[in-house]
Amino acid sequence: MLESLKKKVYEANMQLPKLGLVTFTWGNVSGIDRDKGLFVIKPSGVEYDKLTPDDMVVVNLKGEVVEGKLNPSSDTPTHTVLYNKFPNIGGIVHTHSPWAVSFAEAGIDLPALGTTHADTFYGKVPVSNALTEEEIKTAYEKNTGDVIVRTFRERNIDPEAVPGVLVRQHGPFTWGATPDKAVYNAKVLEVVAEMDYHALQLTRDNIEVPQYLLDKHYYRKHGKNAYYGQKN
Amino acid sequence: MLESLKKKVYEANMQLPKLGLVTFTWGNVSGIDRDKGLFVIKPSGVEYDKLTPDDMVVVNLKGEVVEGKLNPSSDTPTHTVLYNKFPNIGGIVHTHSPWAVSFAEAGIDLPALGTTHADTFYGKVPVSNALTEEEIKTAYEKNTGDVIVRTFRERNIDPEAVPGVLVRQHGPFTWGATPDKAVYNAKVLEVVAEMDYHALQLTRDNIEVPQYLLDKHYYRKHGKNAYYGQKN
Amino acid sequence: MLESLKKKVYEANMQLPKLGLVTFTWGNVSGIDRDKGLFVIKPSGVEYDKLTPDDMVVVNLKGEVVEGKLNPSSDTPTHTVLYNKFPNIGGIVHTHSPWAVSFAEAGIDLPALGTTHADTFYGKVPVSNALTEEEIKTAYEKNTGDVIVRTFRERNIDPEAVPGVLVRQHGPFTWGATPDKAVYNAKVLEVVAEMDYHALQLTRDNIEVPQYLLDKHYYRKHGKNAYYGQKN
Amino acid sequence: MLESLKKKVYEANMQLPKLGLVTFTWGNVSGIDRDKGLFVIKPSGVEYDKLTPDDMVVVNLKGEVVEGKLNPSSDTPTHTVLYNKFPNIGGIVHTHSPWAVSFAEAGIDLPALGTTHADTFYGKVPVSNALTEEEIKTAYEKNTGDVIVRTFRERNIDPEAVPGVLVRQHGPFTWGATPDKAVYNAKVLEVVAEMDYHALQLTRDNIEVPQYLLDKHYYRKHGKNAYYGQKN
Repeated sequence: MLESLKKKVYEANMQLPKLGLVTFTWGNVSGIDRDKGLFVIKPSGVEYDKLTPDDMVVVNLKGEVVEGKLNPSSDTPTHTVLYNKFPNIGGIVHTHSPWAVSFAEAGIDLPALGTTHADTFYGKVPVSNALTEEEIKTAYEKNTGDVIVRTFRERNIDPEAVPGVLVRQHGPFTWGATPDKAVYNAKVLEVVAEMDYHALQLTRDNIEVPQYLLDKHYYRKHGKNAYYGQKN
Repeated sequence: MLESLKKKVYEANMQLPKLGLVTFTWGNVSGIDRDKGLFVIKPSGVEYDKLTPDDMVVVNLKGEVVEGKLNPSSDTPTHTVLYNKFPNIGGIVHTHSPWAVSFAEAGIDLPALGTTHADTFYGKVPVSNALTEEEIKTAYEKNTGDVIVRTFRERNIDPEAVPGVLVRQHGPFTWGATPDKAVYNAKVLEVVAEMDYHALQLTRDNIEVPQYLLDKHYYRKHGKNAYYGQKN
Repeated sequence: MLESLKKKVYEANMQLPKLGLVTFTWGNVSGIDRDKGLFVIKPSGVEYDKLTPDDMVVVNLKGEVVEGKLNPSSDTPTHTVLYNKFPNIGGIVHTHSPWAVSFAEAGIDLPALGTTHADTFYGKVPVSNALTEEEIKTAYEKNTGDVIVRTFRERNIDPEAVPGVLVRQHGPFTWGATPDKAVYNAKVLEVVAEMDYHALQLTRDNIEVPQYLLDKHYYRKHGKNAYYGQKN
Repeated sequence: MLESLKKKVYEANMQLPKLGLVTFTWGNVSGIDRDKGLFVIKPSGVEYDKLTPDDMVVVNLKGEVVEGKLNPSSDTPTHTVLYNKFPNIGGIVHTHSPWAVSFAEAGIDLPALGTTHADTFYGKVPVSNALTEEEIKTAYEKNTGDVIVRTFRERNIDPEAVPGVLVRQHGPFTWGATPDKAVYNAKVLEVVAEMDYHALQLTRDNIEVPQYLLDKHYYRKHGKNAYYGQKN
């Protein structure tokens, strides 16, 4: 069932340690087959060097396991909400990558300070609203998804233009058209967080990029007028 | 004698350089056989790439060497105290991992700023009290163990819920149910110290997690209602 | 066509990931044949581990592709301007190396704080002037080249003595007599930015080196009285 | 001539890149044969992966090359002074390791903030006095040696108890009984500088260790009552 997608999701998961984004088992990638309404996700707490494509778990859009010997990632309900509410995304990544986590812990949006950010994220990467005590005690992982969606809606941020979030006091989730692109975005987020941390320690002047620089760099790589890379 | 435990302790020691937790020979792991009342520990000052399981030294709970050609770690009296006073722990690690040492040198408890911390440490990781001049001059390593125990008692911290300490002006000790878990906790402590350092440089607002987030994440991975990972 | 130069430029490009200067495809090296008035540059957006010498693109000094199956780097117009206006340089590098980017984002010139800097850069590495909205919206990459040239002219900096710049809110460009030397300068810039960042966090006193130390170290490695290294 | 020492010095040089202490060719190790009054040093500007034991240069205590096809390190006059004035040292290392350089650039002594420092350096590692313009313009490398010696004399620091210095606006020199021990001290200095940098950013309270902790840790590893490691 979904063998090709399982392989892609497996390979995207294996990119996380290669890109230096995970410690131990602290990360997961999923990918969705929109036609079938099913997504594939890493099993919970399995070490990367023991993982196989067959270990991937198939889940439906109610968050129910449809196939798989192992428990799916404990973050599965968060992925379920995001696939339901962000209808154009094809893959999701969660990590505890340290620079991104530092901003999530500090509760500070990752500002757009340069072209490295603007090439991928069309504006600030927001810190999510805080979950209430009630939201944490009940259906915590589902509520984490809901608070991400609510944060984007309330702040009027387009999740396709800003494909990531810093869950407050927790860490980053990123997404993309495919599992691979979601992993790419997870790495960009970490690199940008590192750069921005140091820039903000050098100066606390307002150094955010102007809108026209954001436009230039974002649309250089996205949309019909993109001109970076090769035409395929 | 204790061949299986020696092998486990050897392998746990070899994890330290792989996880980036030691420079030169600055680290040691021990593990205990509670039934026999004996623990196994790395020899003092031996390079990791020359270490073998047979080099491990067997020590009793009075801190006396029972078997072994080599001197045990100079920190053996600290391990002895901890095994005596923390009766449920099965393994102990000491390193000079740099982020944890920085908090130990600064004398600042490692605060719980996020879920990465809360998944493993149920509250602040304390900096130990200072040793007096007398305590340093006489039976220093034993007194280091005593000051750890005293710190936990005075501050009413459960060593099973917070399996680590920052010895003031020295560095981290961690422990766990097994030598492997103690190593795991040593790595988590280092990663969390790195994240927290950067969060604290971004803001000095109170950003500690609320108690209910600490509860949620700690008990997600510990105790009878834990639901992270696979049932074995 | 220019097979030998293509090989050199290819090899210089492959140094970037080895030296830890690039993430994904975010970097490019070019090299020029001054006699023929043609330069060779990396194709746009191609992954380093798939790159071959044959993929290199040949461009003339009007910025027109003369040979090559692939699109040249999107930064080609910047390279074109620099080759035209800096007539003695033989190679150019652009990266998003994180320490250098942090200074570019903060808008702070990289000061000469020590001999590591002075050995390669004869004075501050400047942050370029900002591009205007008009300059960003039209012929952005060409205008990036122009603003670099203008910055050096207005601040009376010799591009041979200070072979690099931090493009504001973007990142570093370096150059040199050959592609290899331009790569060397890119690495020095990154290392110096790391050292200087930490020095500036330790103290904000004026710690710039005196002119005579700058003279000593720069001319120890450059010009007819250089005495570092071997005579060939 | 001195084949065994050449091999030791070669191997000590090759430790520098393995320990992450050098970029490019920015480092050198020497070792002395006190009986013959000759020392062996790395040639200037040769890449580590091309170095062989035969490339090592033999120099006498006047700083004259006695044997060798290649130019000795440009820092040879500094080594010469140190061997003459510090009669008990057997090996010297110079690097531009980034954390140590940051303190040298900032002009801040590396304070003893913990046991990692005290195990190797019996007190602050000093920043050298500044060289005058005259001293930099004439016999610069010899004067660098002289200013190190003068700094230790004026501040009454024993170079055997504190086997290293931060040359102001330049970088670290370390030394030891053998070339290997000098390399060990170079690594300790770098690690301690990293730890201390972060501790000092966490707090600017006085966090230097008390004298009795310095005594305990230094003499735990040095002198006739040392008890760390194995008796050989």
